[in-house]
Amino acid sequence: MAEEISSMVLEPIGVIHTPYSKREDIPRQGRLSLELCEIEVFPEYAPALKDIEQCTHLFVIFWLHLGDRRRLTAVPPHDGKEHGVFATRSPSRPNSLALDVVELLEANGNRLKVRGMDALDGSVLLDIKPYSAGIDSFPQARIAWQKDGGATDR
Amino acid sequence: MAEEISSMVLEPIGVIHTPYSKREDIPRQGRLSLELCEIEVFPEYAPALKDIEQCTHLFVIFWLHLGDRRRLTAVPPHDGKEHGVFATRSPSRPNSLALDVVELLEANGNRLKVRGMDALDGSVLLDIKPYSAGIDSFPQARIAWQKDGGATDR
Repeated sequence: MAEEISSMVLEPIGVIHTPYSKREDIPRQGRLSLELCEIEVFPEYAPALKDIEQCTHLFVIFWLHLGDRRRLTAVPPHDGKEHGVFATRSPSRPNSLALDVVELLEANGNRLKVRGMDALDGSVLLDIKPYSAGIDSFPQARIAWQKDGGATDR
Repeated sequence: MAEEISSMVLEPIGVIHTPYSKREDIPRQGRLSLELCEIEVFPEYAPALKDIEQCTHLFVIFWLHLGDRRRLTAVPPHDGKEHGVFATRSPSRPNSLALDVVELLEANGNRLKVRGMDALDGSVLLDIKPYSAGIDSFPQARIAWQKDGGATDR
């Protein structure tokens, strides 16, 4: 266990290019945005992209470098009440991991054009996974503290 | 940037208890499994769970301690062809991050009863996020290399 834990160091595998250079520019959720963003995978990891163009949607995991890792509760701006960070998508959380679902528009070598990111320009890329409707899509999911249960884009 | 990268060390925030003590026991995808699993959040992070019971479904991110971080391609057993790891859910990938969507059945203090996990018993928990149908559900997503495009549980 000690060995496992000491090895939980993340490698940067690429950079995410977005039009959002300041925190205030970021849309509240990536899906609200029609902006094109580009995921640049470092050349040494390019072989891991083989057949990525066969996926219509991807999970993108990146590092929230502005998050405060000590914060355990957050007050979402559109809600005004305090919730535990694990019940929110706050950028402040014990491990600064962000997760977006994006639409893959084009794959060109080690660069992916995508829609639906809410990352700050220059964010460090950590992982890409194919989104599978059969195991990842739960249209019935609800979050009671959100006005509409999170059922629609907010 | 150098400072950001040097700080990308993950903290264990809990342990995942599942009936799967060996790799061969793990269902191919968590959603195939009706087994109950328990997520134990370490007491110091329990305040981050406030209002979690208001979420019907959660993203769970955990560490794939048996993954080989040097592998960039994988041959899924049900497919027999080589794909880049970013186009698969292989446990071997540059950053050993696993992502499951689970159904939350019960929240009791710092323990969550969930269904849909494919983690090995004792896996290190890294993050929990609420699943929002409006931003995370894409029933139309397809993966062309999978027989049915990933549209149904496999």
